[in-house]
Amino acid sequence: MPRRQVAPTAAIRFDVVDGPEATATVTGAVAAIRGRVRTLATVRSIAGDPPQVEIELEVEGVTEDALVAALDGLSEIRAIHRTRALGTVFGKRIIVVGGGAQVAQVALGAVSEADRHNLRGERISVDTIPLVGEADIAAAVRAVADLPRARLLVLAGSIMGGDISAAAEELRAVGIPIIALNMVGSITDHVDLVVSDPVQAGTMAVMAVGETATCVLARQRGRRY
Amino acid sequence: MPRRQVAPTAAIRFDVVDGPEATATVTGAVAAIRGRVRTLATVRSIAGDPPQVEIELEVEGVTEDALVAALDGLSEIRAIHRTRALGTVFGKRIIVVGGGAQVAQVALGAVSEADRHNLRGERISVDTIPLVGEADIAAAVRAVADLPRARLLVLAGSIMGGDISAAAEELRAVGIPIIALNMVGSITDHVDLVVSDPVQAGTMAVMAVGETATCVLARQRGRRY
Repeated sequence: MPRRQVAPTAAIRFDVVDGPEATATVTGAVAAIRGRVRTLATVRSIAGDPPQVEIELEVEGVTEDALVAALDGLSEIRAIHRTRALGTVFGKRIIVVGGGAQVAQVALGAVSEADRHNLRGERISVDTIPLVGEADIAAAVRAVADLPRARLLVLAGSIMGGDISAAAEELRAVGIPIIALNMVGSITDHVDLVVSDPVQAGTMAVMAVGETATCVLARQRGRRY
Repeated sequence: MPRRQVAPTAAIRFDVVDGPEATATVTGAVAAIRGRVRTLATVRSIAGDPPQVEIELEVEGVTEDALVAALDGLSEIRAIHRTRALGTVFGKRIIVVGGGAQVAQVALGAVSEADRHNLRGERISVDTIPLVGEADIAAAVRAVADLPRARLLVLAGSIMGGDISAAAEELRAVGIPIIALNMVGSITDHVDLVVSDPVQAGTMAVMAVGETATCVLARQRGRRY
């Protein structure tokens, strides 16, 4: 699936009176200045009368000044903080899912390699969750498709198959590649690359999404190490 | 800052023709069925004519069937997939920021402890980014306030202060506590807890947000280990 280049993005965080109309009002004001809402995420709820929510908003195609001006006059909005688009701070995300022992070792390799890339100006994050059981792991694999900026999944465990393998194919179909540890089960037939050593799997995952080594997966797809 | 209980949330992912009106149309349709948009995040751009974007949408206060029905008739929407709210899959997030060597060791402790919590039905993720330099680390600390479901920050490094300490106070002011490794610099005076061993720091971070040990920070605030 080809990706378009993303334009610079204005980002703010604001408090707004909670209610069904809140986000429609905000997105209407953004549309009026011809901005494209890329993210609108509730980050906190604030109890009170009336209750408020704190929302992070990223808009493509407008300046931060124009965005603040468009929202500043709305009566529902109580406070606006200027911030930065999350992609410029946390960048591309490697997601690691599986058993705790293996997830920790993959994270060790991935964080070490991401450190080297980030020192040179890239932004790569390593996000992990230890989980057990076919249903929960399969749900997490499918949910990676819903995560903003997720670029690659590492499956770190000792046995995976069944619905996890089905979920892996669904995720690859939306354009997110998968590296799996060499393990028991059918999963190793449904991923882009199989790596036995978890530290190396984490390292390769970062190399695959880094700007300096984008060819890793294209050349290695289907191989086992 | 008190938190309100979050109601069950319907979640879908859909392709929509990209343009300034796209999200306003969607949020208007959601408001019409009295739903509250909690997340609207662009997860992928799809090149083509017209270009489309894939958006993950979470709405509180409506059923998934009602949400699908409300959006299914809109001409701009090309495909709808039912999915799950990210909070039910990835849960609370511990964020770890700092130098690669220390971030990896904090992640080891945090992932191991999260594994134990998640085995008992909780959902705790450990999300990391290795970074260098006062400006970039301070920006990441501030950006944690913009991350959905972020519950605690661990600062893992050997020297931090200056604007990072200012950013730490800003983050704590919005209700996100911070654990720091014992290190050089003023940061240790601007966090909730200081821990010398990185593996233990990661473990304590998860204990502090877990359902089974919520008292950790309240009882230990300001102490050093």
